[in-house]
Amino acid sequence: MKVAVLGCGSVGSQVVRLLGEQADDLAARVGAPVELAGVAVRRLDAAREVDVPTELLTTDAAALVARDDIDLVIEVIGGIEPARSLILGAPEGGASVVTANKALLAEDGPTLFEAAEKAGRDLYYEAAVAGAIPILRPLRESLAGDKVTRVLGIVNGTTNFILDKMDTSGAGFADALEEAQALGYAEADPTADVEGFDAAAKAAILASLAFHSRVTAADVHREGIADVTAGDVRSARDMGSVVKLLAIAELRTGADGEEAVSVRVHPAMIPRSHPLASVREAYNAVFVESEAAGQLMFYGPGAGGSPTASAVLGDLVTVARNHRQGTRGMGESAYADRAVLPMGETLTRYHVAIDVADRAGVLAAVAQAFAEHGVSIQTVRQEGRGDDAQLVVVSHEATDAALAATVEQLRNMEIVREVTSVMRVEGTEE
Amino acid sequence: MKVAVLGCGSVGSQVVRLLGEQADDLAARVGAPVELAGVAVRRLDAAREVDVPTELLTTDAAALVARDDIDLVIEVIGGIEPARSLILGAPEGGASVVTANKALLAEDGPTLFEAAEKAGRDLYYEAAVAGAIPILRPLRESLAGDKVTRVLGIVNGTTNFILDKMDTSGAGFADALEEAQALGYAEADPTADVEGFDAAAKAAILASLAFHSRVTAADVHREGIADVTAGDVRSARDMGSVVKLLAIAELRTGADGEEAVSVRVHPAMIPRSHPLASVREAYNAVFVESEAAGQLMFYGPGAGGSPTASAVLGDLVTVARNHRQGTRGMGESAYADRAVLPMGETLTRYHVAIDVADRAGVLAAVAQAFAEHGVSIQTVRQEGRGDDAQLVVVSHEATDAALAATVEQLRNMEIVREVTSVMRVEGTEE
Repeated sequence: MKVAVLGCGSVGSQVVRLLGEQADDLAARVGAPVELAGVAVRRLDAAREVDVPTELLTTDAAALVARDDIDLVIEVIGGIEPARSLILGAPEGGASVVTANKALLAEDGPTLFEAAEKAGRDLYYEAAVAGAIPILRPLRESLAGDKVTRVLGIVNGTTNFILDKMDTSGAGFADALEEAQALGYAEADPTADVEGFDAAAKAAILASLAFHSRVTAADVHREGIADVTAGDVRSARDMGSVVKLLAIAELRTGADGEEAVSVRVHPAMIPRSHPLASVREAYNAVFVESEAAGQLMFYGPGAGGSPTASAVLGDLVTVARNHRQGTRGMGESAYADRAVLPMGETLTRYHVAIDVADRAGVLAAVAQAFAEHGVSIQTVRQEGRGDDAQLVVVSHEATDAALAATVEQLRNMEIVREVTSVMRVEGTEE
Repeated sequence: MKVAVLGCGSVGSQVVRLLGEQADDLAARVGAPVELAGVAVRRLDAAREVDVPTELLTTDAAALVARDDIDLVIEVIGGIEPARSLILGAPEGGASVVTANKALLAEDGPTLFEAAEKAGRDLYYEAAVAGAIPILRPLRESLAGDKVTRVLGIVNGTTNFILDKMDTSGAGFADALEEAQALGYAEADPTADVEGFDAAAKAAILASLAFHSRVTAADVHREGIADVTAGDVRSARDMGSVVKLLAIAELRTGADGEEAVSVRVHPAMIPRSHPLASVREAYNAVFVESEAAGQLMFYGPGAGGSPTASAVLGDLVTVARNHRQGTRGMGESAYADRAVLPMGETLTRYHVAIDVADRAGVLAAVAQAFAEHGVSIQTVRQEGRGDDAQLVVVSHEATDAALAATVEQLRNMEIVREVTSVMRVEGTEE
């Protein structure tokens, strides 16, 4: 089994290290030796975390992929190009692929799956979602006899670190981001994490697998955490909740009565008793609900060179076993072909905190605004504060459009001084 | 794909129900229809949770297994015989097997694996450990490129319910057991759960897979929870810990310098900050440590007809896919062939609470007893109580034999009134 590794950054170098250190175990588990046949890098003379024999290094990734003797290409470059061309080239040349490239899979997964299937080769990507946590294989295989109804994931370590910091220290977003950057949990340009792009790519991959449908990053409703305030976090705390950035994929009945996929990334309040609430710092976890199994959770490190390399090598062993048997894994299935529900039609719950004039009739007026949009209120908490009062309303489930329209109307009411916090509520029973 | 189900109790009836309800999805995921071809029961006229067409029922399980047209036998009878003979008969007749039978696998797994391998058929058993939680497949496949170093599991819901009740209410063991029985979490004869036999079978299965070695139930050092007192639970609480019945499988270096498997089931104190500490009621969770991936946890319902059936059907889909491709899964691997470390040589930590006479020199004498056996003390807490004082000692790691000998010596010391609590400590760094 000859392996080419494309990219020798934090993940690639750990893959190379483990291929060496675990060589005997890998050979025993596969049933044949696994040989590192080449490593494609951008610069031959760059500093690397591991020593790679010079004769294995090349800057010509395409030529490495095209070599006749390569059985497996491990792509850990990331990004769209040249990764896509290289991944498409591998099965043409007879090689299977293991990749950690969530952005590419979420943008153009079906093209990759089709190329692999057409050539009778494997394409595995456990490392693309939640690092070392085995979640794609359980969704695809362990739960293959069950009906998954909901996936709630904390799949971005950077934003979880920032929100956890805001929760424990009371800091605002900017200070918590600065600390995350100082500690290496956030990049200098934190956009991909903070604005939810990374989580949205993972949400698309999770939704595709869970619901046997094609869901791309463009289908995912996305809101980041840059607007989460210390007040939001305090407000969550007051109601026994915590703010998390969630990747949510669930089956919902659309306006046409058909089951559709709701897939979104946004900050939400979840009760502190929920298993996801105790996921601290940069850890990841994915919570899965299915009809027969009930509630499952998968927890672990969601990033890092070594954990991600563990997931890559797990896929390598599977591909190598398939290769030896002359078979391939099942490939992707999109047979259910479910539609993606527009965010406006998705049922959600809102937590809304409002500063109002403290006078008679205010609560009635606010309640009336909710009622006009057909939104039922679950709880209201009122606190007098000098001249003002604060109302905290938690709604029952309603369409996101109706809830958004309600908040818009509240903002325009004369008795409302300010809508201080609007956030969705997840992880509770209706 | 023709399926025979052996046993139609709480799991079997849910398997039959899901085979019907999910028929379209199963067919799409497998690529061919999955047909229920027969159900073996003890009595044709027994009351059942699901309606099974009369013509599918038989009391002759052996004849059903021997039928030429059966591709897959699902064994959910449990126990050693006739389950073993039936499982051994299936591959001879050309059928693969999915089973939830932990007791049989832990007693005689290798015989079953060899029979399946010889016949070129599959044997899958995800449902045997921790119900619906996907843990065996992640251990066997997702972590196949990594080196697992430790598995800590809460794998018995009954004992977790009892210990959780003792922790939250302060109840003693007998009262908590009674409540568990009243609520249906414990059986009238609770021996298999309370004495750790069930957990020990699961520990053997986990250890075999994690360490690629043959470990049977007889290799597992087993202590149940019947001797856990309200005082132990209080003592754990005082040090910020909680008592859990843990199934532990870890790699340890033996006296000969070779890596060996330590596998055991016993109650232990773990810190409340440990992810396993928040596993409440009858839930299960398995915590896995590996060199590259770090710390992972898998959480969910560990028992129940419907969750267990979900795991069975996940295996069914895998076996059916293999069947269609004319291949089989990798089978068991025991290539590492590691020895099992005797409990006496296993490194553990002890928490020991001692009622002593409150006079000068007592602490020195107690410390001396630990020192004589080469046991290093991590912390001592001393509390005066009238004439007596209580010492709570937590040791560093030492061999279990040295720790047991230390406690034995303490019990015989004149200044020691009573050793009130002895319990191992897990889930902390040394």
